[in-house]
Amino acid sequence: MISHPAFSCEAWCLRETDLDLDVLAQSESLFALSNGHIGWRGNLDEGAPYELPGSYLNGVHELRPLPYAEAGYGYPESGQTMINVANGKLIRLLVDDEPFDVRYGTLHSHERVLDFAAGVLRRNALWTSPAGRTVHVSSTRLVSLVQRSVAAIEYQIEAVDGPVRLVIQSELVVNEPLPPGSEDPRAAAVLESPLRSQMHASDGMRVELVHRTELSNLLVAAAMDHLVDGPDSMQVLSESFTDMGRVSMTVILEPGQRLRFVKFVTYGWSAERTRQELGDQVDAALTGAHQSGWEGLLAEQRTYLDDFWARADVEVDGDAEIQQAVRFALFHVLQAGARAERRAIPAKGLTGTGYGGHAFWDTETFVLPVLTYTVPTAAAYALAWRHSTLQPALDRAAQLGMKGAAFPWRTITGAECSSYWPAGTAAFHVGADIADALVRYMNATGDTDFEAKIGLELLMQTARFWQSLGHHDVQGRFCIDGVTGPDEYSAVADNNIYTNLMAQHNLVSAVEVAKRNPDRARELGIDEEEMAAWGDAARDMMVPYDDILAVHPQADGFTAHQEWDFAGTSAEEYPLLLNFPYFDLYRKQVVKQADLVLAMHLRGDAFSAEQKAANFRYYERLTVRDSSLSACTQSVMAAEVGHLSLAYDYLAEAALMDLENLEHNTRDGVHIASLAGTWIALVAGLGGMRERGGTLRFAPRLPEGLTRVCFRVLFQGRCLQVETIPGLTIYQLLEGTALEIFHFGEPVIVTKESTSCPTPALVLAPEEANRPTQPAGREPLLRSGRRRIRTAKDLP
Amino acid sequence: MISHPAFSCEAWCLRETDLDLDVLAQSESLFALSNGHIGWRGNLDEGAPYELPGSYLNGVHELRPLPYAEAGYGYPESGQTMINVANGKLIRLLVDDEPFDVRYGTLHSHERVLDFAAGVLRRNALWTSPAGRTVHVSSTRLVSLVQRSVAAIEYQIEAVDGPVRLVIQSELVVNEPLPPGSEDPRAAAVLESPLRSQMHASDGMRVELVHRTELSNLLVAAAMDHLVDGPDSMQVLSESFTDMGRVSMTVILEPGQRLRFVKFVTYGWSAERTRQELGDQVDAALTGAHQSGWEGLLAEQRTYLDDFWARADVEVDGDAEIQQAVRFALFHVLQAGARAERRAIPAKGLTGTGYGGHAFWDTETFVLPVLTYTVPTAAAYALAWRHSTLQPALDRAAQLGMKGAAFPWRTITGAECSSYWPAGTAAFHVGADIADALVRYMNATGDTDFEAKIGLELLMQTARFWQSLGHHDVQGRFCIDGVTGPDEYSAVADNNIYTNLMAQHNLVSAVEVAKRNPDRARELGIDEEEMAAWGDAARDMMVPYDDILAVHPQADGFTAHQEWDFAGTSAEEYPLLLNFPYFDLYRKQVVKQADLVLAMHLRGDAFSAEQKAANFRYYERLTVRDSSLSACTQSVMAAEVGHLSLAYDYLAEAALMDLENLEHNTRDGVHIASLAGTWIALVAGLGGMRERGGTLRFAPRLPEGLTRVCFRVLFQGRCLQVETIPGLTIYQLLEGTALEIFHFGEPVIVTKESTSCPTPALVLAPEEANRPTQPAGREPLLRSGRRRIRTAKDLP
Repeated sequence: MISHPAFSCEAWCLRETDLDLDVLAQSESLFALSNGHIGWRGNLDEGAPYELPGSYLNGVHELRPLPYAEAGYGYPESGQTMINVANGKLIRLLVDDEPFDVRYGTLHSHERVLDFAAGVLRRNALWTSPAGRTVHVSSTRLVSLVQRSVAAIEYQIEAVDGPVRLVIQSELVVNEPLPPGSEDPRAAAVLESPLRSQMHASDGMRVELVHRTELSNLLVAAAMDHLVDGPDSMQVLSESFTDMGRVSMTVILEPGQRLRFVKFVTYGWSAERTRQELGDQVDAALTGAHQSGWEGLLAEQRTYLDDFWARADVEVDGDAEIQQAVRFALFHVLQAGARAERRAIPAKGLTGTGYGGHAFWDTETFVLPVLTYTVPTAAAYALAWRHSTLQPALDRAAQLGMKGAAFPWRTITGAECSSYWPAGTAAFHVGADIADALVRYMNATGDTDFEAKIGLELLMQTARFWQSLGHHDVQGRFCIDGVTGPDEYSAVADNNIYTNLMAQHNLVSAVEVAKRNPDRARELGIDEEEMAAWGDAARDMMVPYDDILAVHPQADGFTAHQEWDFAGTSAEEYPLLLNFPYFDLYRKQVVKQADLVLAMHLRGDAFSAEQKAANFRYYERLTVRDSSLSACTQSVMAAEVGHLSLAYDYLAEAALMDLENLEHNTRDGVHIASLAGTWIALVAGLGGMRERGGTLRFAPRLPEGLTRVCFRVLFQGRCLQVETIPGLTIYQLLEGTALEIFHFGEPVIVTKESTSCPTPALVLAPEEANRPTQPAGREPLLRSGRRRIRTAKDLP
Repeated sequence: MISHPAFSCEAWCLRETDLDLDVLAQSESLFALSNGHIGWRGNLDEGAPYELPGSYLNGVHELRPLPYAEAGYGYPESGQTMINVANGKLIRLLVDDEPFDVRYGTLHSHERVLDFAAGVLRRNALWTSPAGRTVHVSSTRLVSLVQRSVAAIEYQIEAVDGPVRLVIQSELVVNEPLPPGSEDPRAAAVLESPLRSQMHASDGMRVELVHRTELSNLLVAAAMDHLVDGPDSMQVLSESFTDMGRVSMTVILEPGQRLRFVKFVTYGWSAERTRQELGDQVDAALTGAHQSGWEGLLAEQRTYLDDFWARADVEVDGDAEIQQAVRFALFHVLQAGARAERRAIPAKGLTGTGYGGHAFWDTETFVLPVLTYTVPTAAAYALAWRHSTLQPALDRAAQLGMKGAAFPWRTITGAECSSYWPAGTAAFHVGADIADALVRYMNATGDTDFEAKIGLELLMQTARFWQSLGHHDVQGRFCIDGVTGPDEYSAVADNNIYTNLMAQHNLVSAVEVAKRNPDRARELGIDEEEMAAWGDAARDMMVPYDDILAVHPQADGFTAHQEWDFAGTSAEEYPLLLNFPYFDLYRKQVVKQADLVLAMHLRGDAFSAEQKAANFRYYERLTVRDSSLSACTQSVMAAEVGHLSLAYDYLAEAALMDLENLEHNTRDGVHIASLAGTWIALVAGLGGMRERGGTLRFAPRLPEGLTRVCFRVLFQGRCLQVETIPGLTIYQLLEGTALEIFHFGEPVIVTKESTSCPTPALVLAPEEANRPTQPAGREPLLRSGRRRIRTAKDLP
């Protein structure tokens, strides 16, 4: 990308052609491989240099006490932190007594390629040791999307300019030293060496290590085995220790001769199974990997991704960077969710330790919309994970004096881990976000089995929560007081519109789904009275409106607050939360991230077109985007109200969040929700896609600069392709039977024959004169001047 | 008192005639002696049994890190905790090898008397050791109100039934083991042994110890010396160690023979002076004590208190318990403030470690009104302490992005120590409370020197703060958003009326005082523009009103909130904060402590009589009094709106807060502000005293049951006595020249001749039918059924 010339702009991969140690941590995140179960950061094979070594297993965490200088009722006492498990990526290499380390000697060439189509990370390095020996090292790494417990590396070394004596140490290392965190040092002490050895064994080229976490009491097993293709003279030694297993290979290569081997690494963990059972499990996974072999693993991976891209690809013509970015984004979203399978999808996936490996509401609101329409089984699994955490959510609600379920603001296992309740527990909207994701999934798939088994119970328990949280006021309005909406620069306000409208949808959906599943409803104890109460609450839901300003206040009183002094705030003072106290942010008109604007996206039916335009303009002036969860939503609503160039600018911001490190914390992992937002900005934004009552609606337009956008969505057994070119959108089913959709409000029957629909003219004042303004210094970069059109040079 | 028959009901002392180990901690607090500089809890002389040993020096504290699981900008990193210094109370006694310990052997009689007139704690015990030896031990303890650094004990032992060999160990002990706190154990670890020895020495009967705190870097010196009156055969040994100094006396007493000695203990501390200087200081104090001698110290103490009671006594006829309680209260308020001298007056005085020894707004709002009218120099010193903390308050305001001074919510030295900002830093009203106390002091004393040197600067910096905190809204109203008022069951609300009205008074007073002191104002940089802006803000101050309910909402939106489910809340669930989450308390109509009602007391001019009556009734229904800072204010306003029996009930609750341990935490120290509230309930409540613009107004009435209330106040160089009997109030100056006051709105000139003014009839519906109601189960106890009238038996 422009800011990092080391990355070239290519359609199907992310390629680094120069090793810039200043962005090493960022590249470790970008080049991370994962299948949602195992995550390997893109650390160099030889381990050093590194910024944050990372090997993660979804769900493997340690507990840490949450300290409070002043305790309060209901504060969670224990936090959860994702821990670094056995590093199976490590292949140390000694070249004639010199460790292969690119910081020393001469690195003639370096290349890393994350291949979105093949699902592998390739690496090539030509290096001369300080002692003058040159070797060519290449590796290909994969975390299998097909065999959930398996990762593998193909590694080759070639002697270039003379005979070299090589010692290769292929390792599994546990409790690696980690860089100091910015967290409380006492907490870090707990997590310094979180794993206690339970057994270790080595045999031939195989090593197995089993460890246990101390407080969370999880057993974690890792095993490795090798297939070697080298000279007969090679010697092999395997060893194991409490925190390390090693297979050492010693060989002398003549110039042009090469050593090639494949390393299989498998992982397993459990809170319940025994050490023996886990040991068998990782052994069995090794056996499976052996049976596929390296080529087999590669082929399975390719087939899996071919299938994914056929259903999920988004083509963007006219802006090569966005084309690359959306595929990068979809690849990481897939990696985060593909095989999470009843575990959370953390905010950073399994690409880094940001947010302690916690999952938030953004899973349901940003990630699941993408998975619902591209890999619906993954969406179902993620929702089933939430369902599996129902008991702690019921317990939490009871602790808070509420009925139903209070889902946690941040968690790994389902227990609330937020220690600052005004921007944690009080953000109760997470319950409605889950309900929204459930309804979206059920409408998109017609999965009646899921609806009866999982959907209704979650809708019921979240609806019960809203009914107990809110109350009818003297004017008969259903009010929800003292909650925090998505915008974290406000907190504990009455009648946050986002929360109220999402809760309304939650309540209405609970009634509808209960009526559709009367037997199951009876089984769950839902009676007519309760449904009537849900219906009443939904009907009477309070939605404040400021008549003087003719806009919706984000919450009661919001528009009466003083405006933030944007003019007096310098660029270095962003993000504001690092430079200003919460009390001052909370009481002023300043918006961290789309809140009312997100309500207009997800509950567009609750606003008129005029209100949307007025509200969008009003909140643009106040929104500083100090969260990565804002640009995509602003893109969606900018497109809806007709500001296409602005929508394009925000699309680019969401798309380049990690590739250009816009939030300066990609080092801690990629922003899965913002990556998902790239798809949302293209499909719901430029494509105008909305689903309402089981029907898809589109309103596709292209901003100046883009010549074609083509996306596919899976919907009710169909695969629908929507291709927009200037003046025209072509709808076509790639799979399935005819479907009625709406194009700019007009019904269209789509079949396997393509149907072209003209784009109606946009009635708006000249774009630039009319463009909404943002806080000084917080305008999105104009895409028009930065756009890269793909050239022959960019092609792989 | 009734609940603890061990305490008899006497007018001038608190007498315990039985040692109940279950209330030992409470009695240690009640029997504490202090002069505001030194505090000695009422621990038994021999040290054991004890609940909380306590010897405190005002200002001596240690720092502790304030932990945050999620950090935030502007959160204080370091807290302060008052520490236990050298225990000079200790006199261990060995009776024929048996330690004198009332838990063993037989305690034939026990008596402790806190004498409000003499200012001493007397103790008498007749005890037979497990081995059968009987001794009579008596002691008298004082902390000198005249010699600030001096405490002393007269100790006597008499052999009763046979010769006894006695070993007396008179000690100074540092770093005593403390009972485990309920605080974070890591914080407690820091404070386990907070003092590091710097030197220790003994010589003759004199011992000196100097220690240093580790983080706060304070030097603390303690010394003791003895005057002994015993048989010639007595042997004396003095020793010193790092954390202990001891003078041991060995003697054999024949029956009827007694040993008597006096122990002088002196303390000094400093952040700046050297070890030598401090050593000299405690030595000098010992010399001073020697010069006075025991009888001299007693006489000085008596004279000091005679003078105090002549000016400050409140006589209550018809309820002996209240008579005792108000003297107990005044005695403790005096002890807390008398010699604090430019140090804070902590919430618990120097009687225990509750609230970490921190001072809060209640100093200015509850304690200083009493001191202002009884010991004005002490009020001036307390305000001078605030002035001395101006720099940290300016720094804090700057850190928060505000102008002027932001005084801390809780502190020892002036730095903010509150780690929960919604109920700490956001309670900005503390600034206006300081301003209110300043104006009260200046109006009561006419201290123009103080006004120019201290008053104006504090008014200016607090006014500047309000001006920067608030803003004019589109309707031209000056709004103060996102703050927390006195009621801690609401937080971070807009336009808290208490805050707004107190800020208004702050702004107006700043203008007035600046105009009165033009030279000083110029020197401080106050110009016409700034005064005009303060005036504008005050004039336009927003005071929300609920037209539908015809009451003032405590803050914007308050009266629209759901009411707390009082009927569904059991008695065991109070205090609510220990059983319900903040988020739920904050969003409902439930009031921890008088907030709007306190505004009606302190800013009565801002409400009509009808509004006061309606508001009082409305908030009575919602106020649970989970804070000790509520009953006195409710008493004041109940009296003002004519509910005299209710006023009496609340008066009794404030008065008996510690004597009956109503908040169940008197163990941690007495509630100085609630004790002060006893005086407020009598003087501002039943007496109806208000000061406005330098003029005193009264509206005295007696509730059924009280036959006479007589109080005195110092005002502008006069000592005014106000004596109310049924139907009549008699005003008389005990000192000073004629003064115009108002009696029920009518001007009266008071002179040294008494003036009788009739009490106008109270026009109200029959009391009980009309009585405002409280939340179920939270009604105050009816005083009528519990009142004790003094009988001959009660007299000493």
